[in-house]
Amino acid sequence: MPTRFELANAIRALAMDAVQKANIGHPGMPMGMADIAEVLWNDFLVHNPANPKWVNRDRFVVSNGHGSMLLYALLNLSGYALPMSELQNFRQLKSKTPGHPENFVTPGVETTTGPLGQGLANAVGMAIAERVLAARYNRDGLDIVDHHTYVFTGDGCLMEGISHEACSLAGVLGLDKLIVLYDDNNISIDGEVGGWFGDDTPARFEAYGWNVVRNVDGHKPEAVKQAIDIARASTGKPTLICCKTIIGFGSPNKQGTAASHGSALGEAEVALVREKLNWPYAPFEIPEAIRAGWDAKARGAAAEQDWNVRFKDYAVKYPVEAAEFEQRMRGELPTAWTAAIAKALADAAKADKPNATRKASKAVLDTVAGVLPELIGGSADLGESNCTDFKGHVALRAGQFAGNYINYGVREFGMVAAMNGLALHGGLIPFGGTFLVFSDYARNGIRMAALMKQRSIYVLTHDSIGLGEDGPTHQPVEHVASLRLIPNVHVWRPADAFETALAWKAAIERASGPTALALTRQNVDPQPRNERQQADAARGAYVLWEPKSAPEAVIIATGSEVQLAVKAAAQLADKGRAVRVVSMPCAEVFAQQDAAYRDTVLPPELRKRLAIEAGVSSYWRAFVGLDGDVLGIDSFGESAPASAVFKHFGFTVENLVERTEKLLSR
Amino acid sequence: MPTRFELANAIRALAMDAVQKANIGHPGMPMGMADIAEVLWNDFLVHNPANPKWVNRDRFVVSNGHGSMLLYALLNLSGYALPMSELQNFRQLKSKTPGHPENFVTPGVETTTGPLGQGLANAVGMAIAERVLAARYNRDGLDIVDHHTYVFTGDGCLMEGISHEACSLAGVLGLDKLIVLYDDNNISIDGEVGGWFGDDTPARFEAYGWNVVRNVDGHKPEAVKQAIDIARASTGKPTLICCKTIIGFGSPNKQGTAASHGSALGEAEVALVREKLNWPYAPFEIPEAIRAGWDAKARGAAAEQDWNVRFKDYAVKYPVEAAEFEQRMRGELPTAWTAAIAKALADAAKADKPNATRKASKAVLDTVAGVLPELIGGSADLGESNCTDFKGHVALRAGQFAGNYINYGVREFGMVAAMNGLALHGGLIPFGGTFLVFSDYARNGIRMAALMKQRSIYVLTHDSIGLGEDGPTHQPVEHVASLRLIPNVHVWRPADAFETALAWKAAIERASGPTALALTRQNVDPQPRNERQQADAARGAYVLWEPKSAPEAVIIATGSEVQLAVKAAAQLADKGRAVRVVSMPCAEVFAQQDAAYRDTVLPPELRKRLAIEAGVSSYWRAFVGLDGDVLGIDSFGESAPASAVFKHFGFTVENLVERTEKLLSR
Repeated sequence: MPTRFELANAIRALAMDAVQKANIGHPGMPMGMADIAEVLWNDFLVHNPANPKWVNRDRFVVSNGHGSMLLYALLNLSGYALPMSELQNFRQLKSKTPGHPENFVTPGVETTTGPLGQGLANAVGMAIAERVLAARYNRDGLDIVDHHTYVFTGDGCLMEGISHEACSLAGVLGLDKLIVLYDDNNISIDGEVGGWFGDDTPARFEAYGWNVVRNVDGHKPEAVKQAIDIARASTGKPTLICCKTIIGFGSPNKQGTAASHGSALGEAEVALVREKLNWPYAPFEIPEAIRAGWDAKARGAAAEQDWNVRFKDYAVKYPVEAAEFEQRMRGELPTAWTAAIAKALADAAKADKPNATRKASKAVLDTVAGVLPELIGGSADLGESNCTDFKGHVALRAGQFAGNYINYGVREFGMVAAMNGLALHGGLIPFGGTFLVFSDYARNGIRMAALMKQRSIYVLTHDSIGLGEDGPTHQPVEHVASLRLIPNVHVWRPADAFETALAWKAAIERASGPTALALTRQNVDPQPRNERQQADAARGAYVLWEPKSAPEAVIIATGSEVQLAVKAAAQLADKGRAVRVVSMPCAEVFAQQDAAYRDTVLPPELRKRLAIEAGVSSYWRAFVGLDGDVLGIDSFGESAPASAVFKHFGFTVENLVERTEKLLSR
Repeated sequence: MPTRFELANAIRALAMDAVQKANIGHPGMPMGMADIAEVLWNDFLVHNPANPKWVNRDRFVVSNGHGSMLLYALLNLSGYALPMSELQNFRQLKSKTPGHPENFVTPGVETTTGPLGQGLANAVGMAIAERVLAARYNRDGLDIVDHHTYVFTGDGCLMEGISHEACSLAGVLGLDKLIVLYDDNNISIDGEVGGWFGDDTPARFEAYGWNVVRNVDGHKPEAVKQAIDIARASTGKPTLICCKTIIGFGSPNKQGTAASHGSALGEAEVALVREKLNWPYAPFEIPEAIRAGWDAKARGAAAEQDWNVRFKDYAVKYPVEAAEFEQRMRGELPTAWTAAIAKALADAAKADKPNATRKASKAVLDTVAGVLPELIGGSADLGESNCTDFKGHVALRAGQFAGNYINYGVREFGMVAAMNGLALHGGLIPFGGTFLVFSDYARNGIRMAALMKQRSIYVLTHDSIGLGEDGPTHQPVEHVASLRLIPNVHVWRPADAFETALAWKAAIERASGPTALALTRQNVDPQPRNERQQADAARGAYVLWEPKSAPEAVIIATGSEVQLAVKAAAQLADKGRAVRVVSMPCAEVFAQQDAAYRDTVLPPELRKRLAIEAGVSSYWRAFVGLDGDVLGIDSFGESAPASAVFKHFGFTVENLVERTEKLLSR
């Protein structure tokens, strides 16, 4: 039987050989964390290689994602559908072994990591998800949701601010099934960390209310095992296990230095490692005994089978809950959703008073939340302002996870990354609020949701200079446009209550990516729509106002500027000019429509086009072209009442009429 | 003589009355921190109201910037050029009292705050600046740079991740003249913080290596005074003073609750506060005795005069240093700059081998850094990759501030916000590096530099899919375009070494805002240019390649795609097609050129336009219009060698030729 050290060396060899073959990559972390990984995977991790989607598996997150070869080695060795040919194809086009782990590419990868700190925050979301689902579904003796979330993290993750946000939140929520293994190797890319990273990390985590296991020798399997045992016994606190390790362990000339971090070791050094580790096998060759020592297929199948028996029992005793649980874990919406959102739409269509779209958003939530137990809301400390505090929401607290709302605190990035974890876990549809301008703080987390194709919903209120007196630091100008630039993000900027309800419908029903809702602080006029317009509005853009004769020009508007466009078009009609108004609440959905529809809304020959949006103008050039005009804002905002700021920047019906007339006269 | 409590009540009254008059704002923080502010400003702060720009003043930063009325009250009462009429005009258009403090609007405001956590990070930058300048200029007995940096911070700032980054860095650098006063009032917008913020904050800061003064009663002036004395005596460690306070102190029905945080108290409650505080004066009326108690003009003039005497003495003994110091503090470049950058440009123009623009960037730095002592570089743990580690750089360490380079650690947001502090302090021109994709992490800090018109320079390398194997998490796609959307940011994406040197010239000489340099990881071909082209390149866009006959079409390209465009145009010329190539390294600078020049480069009638950039396409529609084409990337990237990824996305000469031919045949 192979020793633990030999088993761990299989990881080291695969990592250094794959990186060497690609001639690029990160051998240092896998070689340093191999012993820890060996103990965790062989002694503790509950998972089934044959079914990476088994709902009650332990979650394993490599937050220091540059160590992707560690994960690929583990997946291959334990029996996942990741053959050696894929490891040999590390970092090549369309391989299943990209440079950083990608959950949408590789079976067994729980989340996409690499942008430091975010995996840790994803894991916090996963650990919350486990507690929330457990609180809702588990019944005495029948714990159908009952798993751990394990995280590998390095110095880089712990320097990042998001580690503070995520771990402070995990501490106050007492997520005791979250276990983080810290690769304390004293090295980051610039060298020995002492000059720029002097934290007493164990003390820091204790300050967050964590259980901390200090001074574990990360190369002594018994010490690691004992530490994980302690962690698993922790109640009421997440655990940080601080493992002292040597980066690039086994490399005679490079271990313990930044030289082993992010480059191939070189053929000569690889040969020296083979000698030093007494690993005589060829690259990518794993002896049978070692493979057998790693094989987790039988253990995994048995674990899932145990759970299946339990779940069967559960389904007999609690058929309603079992069905709901299964539906949620499949990511399907409940049947009651259809009627609930239809009612929300109907209510919104009837609305006849000016209202802020953030309030219209709350009205939708109030109507639909009751039938969507998978919905889990929250805000980064702006619940009332974001109107995320829907009727009947119940906030989570330590030890009280029977709820559907998270007070994330003033932690925008941590929120969005934790939402990614909630969505990835399955069984939950997260939404979270902040001011639109602070989407900046969370931007890369939104990008990760888009890359990972996760259903996360951002309630981004106070969406323009209409925010008013708080001034330019709080007035988004470039944010709607710049969120639209992230691939696979849908950005809705609804004009009124009806479009807001539509935006929510689209967001909830969109399983393949995140949606951002840009909502007003201030009131906007409701727009009348016939049935056809109501249907077309869901297509992202549609003719909201049509002149009596063939249009000479078109005004394209979004959100709070739609009301100005409609009034301007009406005034222009009185002056004998035929100007169409297109409301475009979601440019991305409009882009997905067939060309015939798009050409109906924006006829290619209709070149006199003016776009109006209280934000940067350049985005709209794509729609108005070189001959059109954009009424936008290409500077920062101003602190003053909203009406004064709008006037200051020319967002008045009068100015819009004038600009349109100028365009018509060209 | 008025009591301290009466002096503090002047702040409370002004804050509640100004908020009441505007009917919007944040009375809670000023009323809660009034006593602390009174002690700091009347007993400690060294400043001169008559000269807010005196270089050796203490810096005072309100990181919880929603408490702007506290700052405006302090400035008015102590004698700055901020008359009562401005306080009465709080939050109105073009007043000097915007909703959040804006350093470019109000005399005496050191930095623009509101986006939480950033003020704290700015202050860390200011405190570093003080140490760096002190190390360079102070001589025995003649400390011409010798001031403190004081910060007010609240729970919100301390929940934000950036507080971790900034304070961890401050701790490891041992910034002992940084003193942070924490408004520990137990309230954030969602209510009592216990449910979402359970940190043992003093222990957390001790873990960062800070000196912590615990349990100070923020309403007992003697306790606050004693704490600040302790802080000022600290050596080798920054200090956090934890002040227990009551938010909205003095409001009988709202103090101690979130209700006092962000809304006017209401006329009735304001009247009750007057009674409770025994403040019988009308709104905005300050009795003479109280005004006299606050007046810092004489003390301030004396302090500056003392310093002037010292500096005069210094200038006699160290005339070279004195002149350099004054030139730096004025933000003017040294005379040697002109020759140095001319040499860098000449060297770059001579470069005839393929090279990465990140390496060309380092070559510029190597040439100019020696004559620019104000330059202070750094990287978020990617020095070698970003090529920010210029020849002769000396890294700062605790106690060793005679340097010009900061190892920021893996802290992108903290880096950029600290750079804002370095720039705001004066005497330094900061640049900092990270991978372009991680500009996301720092985005709002870049926005703040732009809003504040600060000269910060971002070295953003690995600027496209050309990054290769690290894959989509590390490949920027939307980032160049989305940085261009932030008002007042100049984004340079140079095509080769010469344009890189030009970009640096523009960045260093631009005193009115930040510049982002998007640089390649991979080699790019050098482009030949005649003198005219070399001159025109500085105008942001220019004709790099002209066909022999009048152009039928134009290809607009940036960065690494310029080489493809030139080759494609040459091939097309061989096929008898006349296609111009415009290189556009900086669209913002090009936009500032006169229309005549712009029309020369992109003639309005030349409608067959194709833009090529390895990033999202929508930005370029502004240039090519509805009839043009864009070769861009509107999805995430792929993990593979750069050449394979470029090919995968169609970034080949062949494809560009084909696309251009298609455009020509339309």
